[in-house]
Amino acid sequence: MVGFASLTPPYASSCVGGGERDGIVDWLDEIKWTEDGLVPVIAQDAGDGRVLMFAWMNREALKLTAEQGHAVYWSRSRGRLWHKGEASGHRQIVKEIRLDCDNDVIILQVEQKGGIACHTGRRSCFFQRLEDGRWVTVEPVIRNPDEIYGKG
Amino acid sequence: MVGFASLTPPYASSCVGGGERDGIVDWLDEIKWTEDGLVPVIAQDAGDGRVLMFAWMNREALKLTAEQGHAVYWSRSRGRLWHKGEASGHRQIVKEIRLDCDNDVIILQVEQKGGIACHTGRRSCFFQRLEDGRWVTVEPVIRNPDEIYGKG
Repeated sequence: MVGFASLTPPYASSCVGGGERDGIVDWLDEIKWTEDGLVPVIAQDAGDGRVLMFAWMNREALKLTAEQGHAVYWSRSRGRLWHKGEASGHRQIVKEIRLDCDNDVIILQVEQKGGIACHTGRRSCFFQRLEDGRWVTVEPVIRNPDEIYGKG
Repeated sequence: MVGFASLTPPYASSCVGGGERDGIVDWLDEIKWTEDGLVPVIAQDAGDGRVLMFAWMNREALKLTAEQGHAVYWSRSRGRLWHKGEASGHRQIVKEIRLDCDNDVIILQVEQKGGIACHTGRRSCFFQRLEDGRWVTVEPVIRNPDEIYGKG
């Protein structure tokens, strides 16, 4: 359990819907989930503010993220929970969780283990810059993905 | 036309699909749009890295953003193009446009006019922080929305 979030609900986990029972609102119920039960999530480096990646969470992923203190996403392509860093070791230690004004976007402040968030071996997923009508890769690969993921 | 993007296509605008004609790839065709023809967009303050807001763009919005140099989003709730700041004056001057590794998320570096990005009158839309299992508003309203939008 991370310090910023005391999550043990004082009521049955079957309490869903209105988000309130006995005057206690479940913070997860306050989120406006998509029809697919997801919420978009931005991960930002807590140190220098670099935006590292963008992904999705379902309710369970966000709950686990807050409880365990590292980012857990919902992989839409694999259709399962994805503990960021489970294969690469590049965990994201969560320092802060924020919600936007419409209650439908999350931003995490994280400490990026290994300094690499992207599956391409770059620090950030946002390494393509629009220049003169073309997307140009403007950041180096820090570590070869084959090395990271053991395919080499 | 902003300096970082020369967008006048050397071919008919009816050229869509594969994204390539005569070896020239349209940067807009390289984006993996959702089924609804949208792409998620993060707006970040180019000065200090604060993430200001999250919104969506369709093809026309992103094209206009690059051509006109200020952020143009697609308002899903209103079903129309939304020139950010059209009502508030709080335009976002675009300094850089980047695309992520999967070609399905955009991040803008912007200069936020008026220092207010959020419709609540706050600097950033991400003003609710998770603290002990509750969302807590941790940032002040800089200017009353009634004043901003002339409803007062």
